[in-house]
Amino acid sequence: MKKPIVTLTTDFGNKDPYVACMKGVILSICPEATIIDITHDISKFDIEEAAYILYRAYSFFPPGTIHVCVVDPGVGTERKPIAIKTRRYIFVGPDNGVLTIAAEDDGIEDIRVIESRYVMLSEVSYTFHGRDIFAPAAAWIALGYPLEMLGRSIDRIDVVKFDKPQISGGKVIGRIIYVDSYGNLVTNIKWDLIKDRVTFGEKVRLYYMGNEVSIPLSRSYGEVPLGELVLIPGSGGFMEISVNMGNASEKLGLKKGDQIYMEINR
Amino acid sequence: MKKPIVTLTTDFGNKDPYVACMKGVILSICPEATIIDITHDISKFDIEEAAYILYRAYSFFPPGTIHVCVVDPGVGTERKPIAIKTRRYIFVGPDNGVLTIAAEDDGIEDIRVIESRYVMLSEVSYTFHGRDIFAPAAAWIALGYPLEMLGRSIDRIDVVKFDKPQISGGKVIGRIIYVDSYGNLVTNIKWDLIKDRVTFGEKVRLYYMGNEVSIPLSRSYGEVPLGELVLIPGSGGFMEISVNMGNASEKLGLKKGDQIYMEINR
Amino acid sequence: MKKPIVTLTTDFGNKDPYVACMKGVILSICPEATIIDITHDISKFDIEEAAYILYRAYSFFPPGTIHVCVVDPGVGTERKPIAIKTRRYIFVGPDNGVLTIAAEDDGIEDIRVIESRYVMLSEVSYTFHGRDIFAPAAAWIALGYPLEMLGRSIDRIDVVKFDKPQISGGKVIGRIIYVDSYGNLVTNIKWDLIKDRVTFGEKVRLYYMGNEVSIPLSRSYGEVPLGELVLIPGSGGFMEISVNMGNASEKLGLKKGDQIYMEINR
Repeated sequence: MKKPIVTLTTDFGNKDPYVACMKGVILSICPEATIIDITHDISKFDIEEAAYILYRAYSFFPPGTIHVCVVDPGVGTERKPIAIKTRRYIFVGPDNGVLTIAAEDDGIEDIRVIESRYVMLSEVSYTFHGRDIFAPAAAWIALGYPLEMLGRSIDRIDVVKFDKPQISGGKVIGRIIYVDSYGNLVTNIKWDLIKDRVTFGEKVRLYYMGNEVSIPLSRSYGEVPLGELVLIPGSGGFMEISVNMGNASEKLGLKKGDQIYMEINR
Repeated sequence: MKKPIVTLTTDFGNKDPYVACMKGVILSICPEATIIDITHDISKFDIEEAAYILYRAYSFFPPGTIHVCVVDPGVGTERKPIAIKTRRYIFVGPDNGVLTIAAEDDGIEDIRVIESRYVMLSEVSYTFHGRDIFAPAAAWIALGYPLEMLGRSIDRIDVVKFDKPQISGGKVIGRIIYVDSYGNLVTNIKWDLIKDRVTFGEKVRLYYMGNEVSIPLSRSYGEVPLGELVLIPGSGGFMEISVNMGNASEKLGLKKGDQIYMEINR
Repeated sequence: MKKPIVTLTTDFGNKDPYVACMKGVILSICPEATIIDITHDISKFDIEEAAYILYRAYSFFPPGTIHVCVVDPGVGTERKPIAIKTRRYIFVGPDNGVLTIAAEDDGIEDIRVIESRYVMLSEVSYTFHGRDIFAPAAAWIALGYPLEMLGRSIDRIDVVKFDKPQISGGKVIGRIIYVDSYGNLVTNIKWDLIKDRVTFGEKVRLYYMGNEVSIPLSRSYGEVPLGELVLIPGSGGFMEISVNMGNASEKLGLKKGDQIYMEINR
């Protein structure tokens, strides 16, 4: 059997003992598992941010990887713990939308509510399902426990969707969906959506918060002088606004959620 | 042989090269070891905090796990490096109390001073025993090096103890022993101590810093409205004061070490 | 075959999905790899800091370890991706100096430009060579892909050098090259350079920013009272200015890059 890989994405931070508890539970059930942290620094309770980060990372892992995501403000209430089988992966987490973007991107094949007491710790707390339900369920799946035995199958799950950008005439109306630690502004505008209408080297007009600025469209940061704005097809497929060796979020005063317009001439 | 697991708990942070040095040393001696970070974000020199976090996490790991904890303000002075065999685990670290709460909880069977030069790096610095003594000793233990050969056995170790809460009449006097990254206030009051005297749904009167407030006792955060205080038997067995989707530490102005009273009617 | 170890040193931080993407790529190509984080908290674009941290950590890993370092402000421009074979290790990263100090310390034997499309992801972005070139190249090397097949060999690489301290008479002129998370001030003055001219217990005169202070030379922090300055041969071989249980950087107002003088009597 191939060595199973389990990834973890949470808003637990790296100081508290919570992540370690989950890892201890996983290794107690499935000592062969390789556990990889995607991140534990999701903004507290920010389901959309977690959904984005999981979406950006999930597909680079080997097929069969079990992705566990626990950003779970409703822990202990009636929201359901679920496991989703997609074309190549298994996703485990609360049914609050956190898994949806990645799972739909890969192609959902089966959704199960995690109900089997067999895959939970013997005492399930009301406040830490990461440790008591999601970690052990992921570990049992890693060991080969069949998904169908987790619980009943369901058809619909909670969704989080990125706003789709709107195009009308030469205008693309979008939104900042993520600001990374460099200050790069990731928009919801896919490169594929505009690539036939723009040329590298041309300047694109950006409107934001009552301001406007012209930004050269480039492939890499270094094609503009130090400290200058640049518009780039980011490594995740979305258009990103960046500053060469600088912080675009600080320079423009833009943050997650803010709306932007771009003017494309063709 | 089962693959050995070594956990690390330190106040080294995640930027400096110190944790990586320890991991390199462990893998050089015992390439089969699985190394798991509990945390490296213990507040600098905070032995009590490290003891608490280790206590919260240790028991979720498989029996045989070697728990290394290096929060070591006295490094290079006469405080002793020790290894403790408990009922199910091995603990390795300085004899300054950092290991005591977890080790006593599991049941101490043997305590050894780490004296054997064989399990240390050939040159031992005066400032980095994590790398030069604790990491290699843990790795040799992981390889099967017998504990008795580490050095002389001792009977007593340094202790850190959580204050025990006091109960008199309907009053429980306790203390905040940890504030987690959500702002949850973990008290030293065990759920077991009060559970026969309270009922879920009732309101408990909390006195702190000259203020008082009534807080509903609940099983999960979501049972109170957003932003409201809630008193919960936490996942670690201690009573915790929380805010649904909010930060109790900020809301009440309470921090680690602060005293609180609770009034229980029965 | 021994289980290959791949270490990662980046300025990506721990929140963004970038590190996880690299790990997913590595495990997709080489599932047997053990991946160890050195750090992802290098100050953004700080090549010198990354070079220092890699230098401090690299030699504690088992021979054969593949050290990947991605601090890469010039990503997507003409700077070359390289792999360096040294006496005991392989280093992989951009040719911007980040690998040089560690690689030269171990002894460079072969330098290759990574040109083979075979070891890159099928689509190489212009902004994320960590994921598209460095991670897969490291994974292929871990699998046994011969270094000579990566690309042409080159003789010279970009360098970052720590300033050498100057000694004249009883004066040593040095510089702070790193401030760790404890506030310890790591200087570029090697212990070996001065150890024959000083005695433990004596006071060394330190001049900085127009101030002066006498600091006892000690082996360990605990040899001076709490809160007092102490000069120590650090665990990395450089002289460090520290405060017992305190923060020397805050106490003296010194930071990375600042110049210092020491007066040594003999």
